[in-house]
Amino acid sequence: MPSAARIMQRCDALARHSELAGGLTRVFLSREYRAATEEVLGWMREAGMQASLDAIGNVAGRYEGVRAGLPCLMLGSHLDTVRDAGRYDGMLGVITAIECVAALARQGKRLPFAIEVLGFGDEEGVRFGTSMLGSRAVSGTLDAATLDARDAAGVTISDALRGFGLDVSRIPRLARKKGEVLAYAELHIEQGPVLEAESLPVGVVSAINGFSRLRATLAGVAGHAGTVPMKLRRDALAAAAECVLAIERIARSDAELVGTVGRIEAKPGAINVIPGEVQFTIDFRAPRDALREQAVRAAIAAVEKTAAERRLECKVESIQELSVTACAPWLIEQFERAVAAEGVRVRRLPSGAGHDGQAMQAIADVAMLFVRCKDGVSHNPAESITEADAGAGARALLRFIERFEPRR
Amino acid sequence: MPSAARIMQRCDALARHSELAGGLTRVFLSREYRAATEEVLGWMREAGMQASLDAIGNVAGRYEGVRAGLPCLMLGSHLDTVRDAGRYDGMLGVITAIECVAALARQGKRLPFAIEVLGFGDEEGVRFGTSMLGSRAVSGTLDAATLDARDAAGVTISDALRGFGLDVSRIPRLARKKGEVLAYAELHIEQGPVLEAESLPVGVVSAINGFSRLRATLAGVAGHAGTVPMKLRRDALAAAAECVLAIERIARSDAELVGTVGRIEAKPGAINVIPGEVQFTIDFRAPRDALREQAVRAAIAAVEKTAAERRLECKVESIQELSVTACAPWLIEQFERAVAAEGVRVRRLPSGAGHDGQAMQAIADVAMLFVRCKDGVSHNPAESITEADAGAGARALLRFIERFEPRR
Repeated sequence: MPSAARIMQRCDALARHSELAGGLTRVFLSREYRAATEEVLGWMREAGMQASLDAIGNVAGRYEGVRAGLPCLMLGSHLDTVRDAGRYDGMLGVITAIECVAALARQGKRLPFAIEVLGFGDEEGVRFGTSMLGSRAVSGTLDAATLDARDAAGVTISDALRGFGLDVSRIPRLARKKGEVLAYAELHIEQGPVLEAESLPVGVVSAINGFSRLRATLAGVAGHAGTVPMKLRRDALAAAAECVLAIERIARSDAELVGTVGRIEAKPGAINVIPGEVQFTIDFRAPRDALREQAVRAAIAAVEKTAAERRLECKVESIQELSVTACAPWLIEQFERAVAAEGVRVRRLPSGAGHDGQAMQAIADVAMLFVRCKDGVSHNPAESITEADAGAGARALLRFIERFEPRR
Repeated sequence: MPSAARIMQRCDALARHSELAGGLTRVFLSREYRAATEEVLGWMREAGMQASLDAIGNVAGRYEGVRAGLPCLMLGSHLDTVRDAGRYDGMLGVITAIECVAALARQGKRLPFAIEVLGFGDEEGVRFGTSMLGSRAVSGTLDAATLDARDAAGVTISDALRGFGLDVSRIPRLARKKGEVLAYAELHIEQGPVLEAESLPVGVVSAINGFSRLRATLAGVAGHAGTVPMKLRRDALAAAAECVLAIERIARSDAELVGTVGRIEAKPGAINVIPGEVQFTIDFRAPRDALREQAVRAAIAAVEKTAAERRLECKVESIQELSVTACAPWLIEQFERAVAAEGVRVRRLPSGAGHDGQAMQAIADVAMLFVRCKDGVSHNPAESITEADAGAGARALLRFIERFEPRR
């Protein structure tokens, strides 16, 4: 049996590798990231795996099957964090996977397939503004130009990898071929409130929502806050306020849709100056691409309508777009059987957050198991799970692994 | 006759003393501010005035009347600028006043009162977040604690004054007594669109609008933009957007009122995080205090209503408040006679912007003459006036001076 207590202890242990005193921040390729990878490598070896750091900085461990060299079931999650993070987002999946392998190893159990556990680097994309670098390398979807991205200090990914002691020229060789990976399965905290609301310790992910990220710019006319009559104003912030509320209305129009304006900047940004220009971001997510695309069109139309009515210039640019990653029905069924066998009512739910599976789908069918978290809070020091739920997740994952049947 | 061409040339000349290459920024006590004061001191002396820098960094010139030591008619405006400023806001009033004195001096004309011209420092308050330091010192309304305010680099006003070579201990002696100053009169660009809309080169100010500045804080709950359903959100930016529109509606409810949200900050400010806290500023101005106070109450109520409906915490703090400064009717009449004598239809209008007269009213009745500016634009490099209007303003001011009759 996997040990829930040890899973919790190890989440705590990894949280100590932090750039932030009194909190948790661990960006990709930092000194603290190295310390975390070394600790995870030790746990992998202790669990009977061959383990090493790969050329993109992932921690990669392998537990052979009944004979060496078999295709693998790949389990994984990430080891980097956002700023001022919680200790379960990413880490729980890596630690639980290792714990499951350790349980097999203790029994000397070998399966008709290998198990690989990947601790991916840079899923969050905090340092370089990129994301899923590690899983993109493993899935062969990382183009070389991405490695030229720079962090705030101007260091490129390539240079940071070299500085970490890695051989950048070997990155292309990380790409796995279809057939080598039978499936990619990830355990992760839900980061949302659904399981808690339904009193369920775990749930099976139906799909990872697609997202559309846009940047809107409204250009009006700056002016003296005391001298320009209201009717002559072309106030970019008042216009942006209308857009923010329109985006909220659009997002509320469908229970499966979410929409967020997370950043806003009004220029020149003085208490006594009418804002002449405002930029804000839009983030839409949905489990159906058509729903998300419809929301994006409606938001663009709303921005254009507001700008026209208020005699402003506007521009809406797409920053990034990613389609829905459907979890494979045959894997969902296997996860659901494992959950049901734990005596838990089966709940299928979409993932609002992004995950490494979005990259891995290029070479393998993917599936995810969610573990309940407190108040739906994530990306926050208040992120919290119970040991009981960690145990339920680990048992369901181990059952899934033990009964895993590759697709015929 | 005052020379409009020379006034325009001198506005251009002062604009060259700038911290900003290719634009105009000249904050209080900068090297460029010193260069500007030296140039203005030279012009004052050339115009037959005794002139020196006073202990708070104002340029102060005096042209005696028919005998030495008479009470003065004080003319003035400011020599500091906002960031990326125009070249007429402030400077035009100082330069035109000097030009008028020069015209009197050329004729050897002495009046039954002295004329003082003040080029005030720090009217705009850009560097230390204070404003009207110079005119507050001259009106005796500058309290000593204000000099402890610091600029962005942590330098206090006191230290900056000392660094400029000034004797801070002499500042209290700058305060003029009632009776020494017969009136304070200022020529300034309108900074608004009224005179242009009515094809008038100059207008007489009825009052300097009062203002209320507030800071509102809305505290909701930050969360993952992908995982928190819309109906569970407590999005501080969506709430702030409602407030911005409510403030706009309140400001539009009366043609004499203006209201502006000039600054907004959403935290944490990431594209994929629901804003948990938003701060924004509110600036209301009106020529009637009751109207402005009513607007402030309505805005606070709107913020509180939005916060309550959206289950957010809110706080609205007053930053600064200043009542309406009415221009003195007897001075308005004298300015209006001067304007009419120039063949210009008399237009009385309030000043939406703040001016040194708001400080000077503590020791003298105040009046202002506005000069038309292009498109109502100010605090902007596009600030523009015509030479013809500069001439009309200077002639009206000279006529006002020559015919000035102190209040009996």
